[in-house]
Amino acid sequence: MPLRREQIVQATIRCLARDGASGLRMKSVAREAGVSQGILHYYFENKRAILIAALEAVAADLNRRLEKLLKTSDDVPDRLRAVLRGYLQFADENRVFWIVFVEFWGEMMHDPELLRFNAVLYRRFRRALGTLVAQGVRRRLFRDIDPEEAGGAILALVDGVSLQRTFDPTALTLRRATRVCEDAVLRYLAR
Amino acid sequence: MPLRREQIVQATIRCLARDGASGLRMKSVAREAGVSQGILHYYFENKRAILIAALEAVAADLNRRLEKLLKTSDDVPDRLRAVLRGYLQFADENRVFWIVFVEFWGEMMHDPELLRFNAVLYRRFRRALGTLVAQGVRRRLFRDIDPEEAGGAILALVDGVSLQRTFDPTALTLRRATRVCEDAVLRYLAR
Repeated sequence: MPLRREQIVQATIRCLARDGASGLRMKSVAREAGVSQGILHYYFENKRAILIAALEAVAADLNRRLEKLLKTSDDVPDRLRAVLRGYLQFADENRVFWIVFVEFWGEMMHDPELLRFNAVLYRRFRRALGTLVAQGVRRRLFRDIDPEEAGGAILALVDGVSLQRTFDPTALTLRRATRVCEDAVLRYLAR
Repeated sequence: MPLRREQIVQATIRCLARDGASGLRMKSVAREAGVSQGILHYYFENKRAILIAALEAVAADLNRRLEKLLKTSDDVPDRLRAVLRGYLQFADENRVFWIVFVEFWGEMMHDPELLRFNAVLYRRFRRALGTLVAQGVRRRLFRDIDPEEAGGAILALVDGVSLQRTFDPTALTLRRATRVCEDAVLRYLAR
């Protein structure tokens, strides 16, 4: 019954946003999802399993969105701009997205299994951005740069900007944040 | 007795690194610091007060280090490079530095008082970097750019790179991370 699993994951995300990872209890998740604790335990063994499922869900959401954006244009710099904009917008529309990530990070700093899970996710993001950079390098639109390294730098910038905006929504409007990232990334890649 | 306060703060940082913010208990901090719970409560009313003190301590450490680096040269790009290197190295030598920040972020996402405290800290970091950028703009070494906006972008990049290295130490060596940041920042500011 995958629908019920999805219902539990969405309830977990709401609980995380409300109570934080330190306040996350299997009991409150069951109540929020409207299922018994027995059913909850049938799908998720413990808090760690449910945290991983929540992070997987928000990451999959973001990936679906970015994949759609990658199909919007044949022009590599245009696609890169669309991805930067999409990433920043996504964090904006889904404040819960960053909350889930940051709460997860807090938990994973003293949990090697969660740390490994997050590292795999980040490697995937770096490679997706790196593929786009490699296309630009091949077409001689960007300078000759190591694609995965560039992917890491671009991800670092949008992550850092999104964090600052999450911490302090008055720091930078979405429009300004998008302009700053586009400008910095295209200068970084320019021949 | 400021020495005893400092002793408690250092014990808190060790507890955070070991148990995470969700596992932080006043009792374990007292035990780790070798003081009674009564003494602990005399200095810190609750977990929030002690978390803020831990973040203040690591941020002050970083600031002292960066201020020293700002005096190493008269050349603005040299100073900027020294600060980028210093920031990345600091995160490397003090793994606990990032642990304290990330644990704090997890807690603050559902605590407006902690959120405000972190926002002030970040504004200060952005301004310090912005001051350096403004000096370079005045001397026509950098292009005409809004200094605080540029400070935010530079902070975002080094934050994002440090996070990726904290999450996955095999992702990027310190040497490579430093080169990537120097390269990206100087291209971003170039006339």
